[in-house]
Amino acid sequence: MFPDWVYQQCPEISATHRAAAFAHQAQLTKPAGSLGRLEQLACDLAGLQQTEKPRAANVPIIIFAGDHGVVAQGVSAYPQEVTVAMMANFAAGGAAISVLARELGSSLEVVDAGTLAQSPMPGIVTDKPRHGSRDFSKEQALTPDEAAFALECGERAVARAGTPDLLIFGEMGIGNTTASAAIAAALLGVGAERTAGSGTGVDAEGRALKARVIDQALALHGLAKPGASAESILCAVGGLEIMAICGAIIAAAQRRIPILIDGFIVSAAALAAVRLNPSCRAFLVASHRSAEQGHHLVLGALNAQPLIDLDLRLGEGSGAAIALPLLRLACALHNGMATFGEANVPDRA
Amino acid sequence: MFPDWVYQQCPEISATHRAAAFAHQAQLTKPAGSLGRLEQLACDLAGLQQTEKPRAANVPIIIFAGDHGVVAQGVSAYPQEVTVAMMANFAAGGAAISVLARELGSSLEVVDAGTLAQSPMPGIVTDKPRHGSRDFSKEQALTPDEAAFALECGERAVARAGTPDLLIFGEMGIGNTTASAAIAAALLGVGAERTAGSGTGVDAEGRALKARVIDQALALHGLAKPGASAESILCAVGGLEIMAICGAIIAAAQRRIPILIDGFIVSAAALAAVRLNPSCRAFLVASHRSAEQGHHLVLGALNAQPLIDLDLRLGEGSGAAIALPLLRLACALHNGMATFGEANVPDRA
Repeated sequence: MFPDWVYQQCPEISATHRAAAFAHQAQLTKPAGSLGRLEQLACDLAGLQQTEKPRAANVPIIIFAGDHGVVAQGVSAYPQEVTVAMMANFAAGGAAISVLARELGSSLEVVDAGTLAQSPMPGIVTDKPRHGSRDFSKEQALTPDEAAFALECGERAVARAGTPDLLIFGEMGIGNTTASAAIAAALLGVGAERTAGSGTGVDAEGRALKARVIDQALALHGLAKPGASAESILCAVGGLEIMAICGAIIAAAQRRIPILIDGFIVSAAALAAVRLNPSCRAFLVASHRSAEQGHHLVLGALNAQPLIDLDLRLGEGSGAAIALPLLRLACALHNGMATFGEANVPDRA
Repeated sequence: MFPDWVYQQCPEISATHRAAAFAHQAQLTKPAGSLGRLEQLACDLAGLQQTEKPRAANVPIIIFAGDHGVVAQGVSAYPQEVTVAMMANFAAGGAAISVLARELGSSLEVVDAGTLAQSPMPGIVTDKPRHGSRDFSKEQALTPDEAAFALECGERAVARAGTPDLLIFGEMGIGNTTASAAIAAALLGVGAERTAGSGTGVDAEGRALKARVIDQALALHGLAKPGASAESILCAVGGLEIMAICGAIIAAAQRRIPILIDGFIVSAAALAAVRLNPSCRAFLVASHRSAEQGHHLVLGALNAQPLIDLDLRLGEGSGAAIALPLLRLACALHNGMATFGEANVPDRA
């Protein structure tokens, strides 16, 4: 039911380049395997980028923002106006992701994929089919056309990014852990008590309310039983920024661009992307394990091992940005170390 | 039995600056606590550095190299010549830590604290009391004077580093996981099978040999029973680069310089430093959990939580260097984010 391009095959990882990268690692002046996961990471990137010299230098960050009708049910610790206020904060340079982008030398694009903002805001790309999703506890969050528009909003953002080495997608949207928890529960066939976390900071009672709202909504939409399609789940309980990220992931993978996946919300979008188009999975690199309950379930379903686990739960793409230096150092080590032969260091017998 | 300065009190963490840093974090435009361990890290650094703006910009890396008589017992996967060959590789820029120092903009000083090199090498500071430690399976590794010389070698290196924001110490020395495992076993009162790991890559049989050599040596030196002093343990089974790092840690802490602790060997030196002078503990920041067996025990004894866990086991200070960007980003976020008031973002009710 979504546009044809969504289902088109992504390229394959280059087994030749990946194997050559592993052979190169074995020649470097260090005990074999002693750089652990950084060795694997460099070799995986070499295969994904089809290159002898994996790179993580040019890594744009694109944030998609959206509002969520379901906040009317009292599921968030912060007022809904925060979505638009934080978009302005991103553009003004004061948010965590703004600081991180500056430190990392990454460009930062902010896309209003569906907030309540009534007019275009300075420094922000407006690309939305409507103002916020509908309250999914009462009705479908999005029509198929609106969902398709948001998928293409993601594709348009990737097209604007040129030819980066990797991409980081982030999100902002009061209520979006609720939509993500609903998507994850439906895709994984589990109760929402396993996917609904504290979000921006609701307490145990708030979490219970959130899970109840989700479980009731999934029943209302006929999604509480196995076998529902990803398309029907996304229209029923999705959000516009989540759909945009889902589309951006597929579009990036189709262009052979690896994606450094952020926390719970981006991972839920990634899981939906993999259900829509399984061939994009190879291009996902997990960055961190969020403190948000349910992230580990989604990572498990993606069979993804995050690099860091620092109790982060901010979103905005911040976890991926914080992990980016590890990829850069992995590439620098892979490309810059001397071999045993070059350095005249005796190898083991 | 060591020089008086070793036992002199280190300054205290500034509780005032640390509390002010936590209060500042609560004002930043993010859900409270959502940057997890990075918030704590920035606040801890603020307290250690007695500042409102914690910094991790100027972070020199100092590598201490030493050889170990105990390699005569066949405890290492690599030949002893690798120690000196790798010192040359550090200075020539081809080793992992050379690449990392360049990427991070850190200066890299290599100190020959006790290798078998017979003459000074270009680009390397020679500061050693003898060529290698004695074989501790037969006799004391170091005399008290030699151990004291090496402690002061570490102190001299810290004095040369000026006024950095933090320091990273690394090591090179074929056989030094054996010496470190012996120190850790004696300090912790456990059998060497719990502290002897694969090092540069010995197999299960090699590990068993290593543990046997250590346990027999500890018995020979009367250290297999509780209550031995850190001083007697370090002379009996220590190594010159390990002693230098131990001295460097104490000297840095006495100058109010936090130390980003690397893997198993540096952590064993840090544990010894804390036993000699408990007041240096506050200045230790753990970087990573090494794949080397025994590191988790030493970290536990230091009550230290590492930031990353990526199956690294290279040494050279590489794990600390790889974690440094996390500290830098923690500082940038702490110092650079807007407050709710500045950004006009509504806070939670």
